[in-house]
Amino acid sequence: MTRPALQVALDFTALEPALAAARRLAGHVDILEAGTLLCLACGMDAVRALRRDHPDHLLVADFKAADAGETLAELAFDAGANWMTVVCAAPLATMERALAVAEARGGDVQIELFGHWTLDDARAWRRLGIRQAVFHRGRDAQAAGQTWSRDDLDRLKALSDIGLEMSVTGGIAAGDLPLFRDIAAKVFIAGRALYGATDPAAAAIGFQQAIADIWGA
Amino acid sequence: MTRPALQVALDFTALEPALAAARRLAGHVDILEAGTLLCLACGMDAVRALRRDHPDHLLVADFKAADAGETLAELAFDAGANWMTVVCAAPLATMERALAVAEARGGDVQIELFGHWTLDDARAWRRLGIRQAVFHRGRDAQAAGQTWSRDDLDRLKALSDIGLEMSVTGGIAAGDLPLFRDIAAKVFIAGRALYGATDPAAAAIGFQQAIADIWGA
Repeated sequence: MTRPALQVALDFTALEPALAAARRLAGHVDILEAGTLLCLACGMDAVRALRRDHPDHLLVADFKAADAGETLAELAFDAGANWMTVVCAAPLATMERALAVAEARGGDVQIELFGHWTLDDARAWRRLGIRQAVFHRGRDAQAAGQTWSRDDLDRLKALSDIGLEMSVTGGIAAGDLPLFRDIAAKVFIAGRALYGATDPAAAAIGFQQAIADIWGA
Repeated sequence: MTRPALQVALDFTALEPALAAARRLAGHVDILEAGTLLCLACGMDAVRALRRDHPDHLLVADFKAADAGETLAELAFDAGANWMTVVCAAPLATMERALAVAEARGGDVQIELFGHWTLDDARAWRRLGIRQAVFHRGRDAQAAGQTWSRDDLDRLKALSDIGLEMSVTGGIAAGDLPLFRDIAAKVFIAGRALYGATDPAAAAIGFQQAIADIWGA
């Protein structure tokens, strides 16, 4: 199984601390993410600045688009993103339009899973050509005390069996990684666990080592 | 039944045309909306500029928040919004946290309906204290040829019977308004039908007149 990548979600309400965190971490993560919060706070200035500072990194615009797939995809890819997210509640037409723009630009669309969705939905996304999804233990769900459960892991396995490459996020510590051993995890996403650490680079290096310990270097 | 308000959704990818449209329309609409597209393109500069230019209008930040309800609500209300939207797929914890911030600021949260949701969900939102929802015939669904159907209208009626005040959007023309005669429509939202008209002010005046013809002045 391919070694999963490490993505830092930059969830800031101002541009400068986001760019500073990206500078500290870029050498140790594979993917940079302009978080929804950063995009709503700073607009596409955030994506453009991250692209300017890090021309060779994969860059994700975490829009969680629910509508206007084509226009939002153009916004994201024009600003320099490689991948953008669409929320699972969006109509199939939104996913299809976003994906068409993404593929024309050599990018990709990830379906972000919140609330109600079914494996039949996931199969419909695959039929549209969607290849990636983001399994999200939400910040508010975490705060409400929900943890990684057997049900979470079974759903992840079922999605990966359908053929979706999974990004996994929501308070993952390096010690949680063995839980995901049997899943086609393409990406692990961490935010404050990396940039909020006393030594962000060391935290990222430790996370990468924990990935390598399971999936190989 | 109270006369519904008219809201203009400013869905632009740049600030200046959005502000110009708001200036042309502000005298003839009740509510200004910083659309998701505008927020993602320009960040909270958009909400701050609309608040600065229109200190007395109700102002909606159409975030379609899916997570991080408290932080996103602080972002929206700090920038000057009165209402913000949360997508129906968001966890209840996200709605609850956004609503707590909104109520502390004298604002409100609207649940934006996309994809799967049930009347049981709507009852759960009401139990949390949610008072408003946005019924959205999405842009992509419109483009795919879906029209206002009996099913749409029945769902709107059921939501309003649960006690939710409804904003209705998605390609509504003044001629469609009689369809909504029996629904607790609080707000009609239009975008390009207003600012894309040859004479935007005349279009808004015509829409307001159509509202008055049904619901009274």
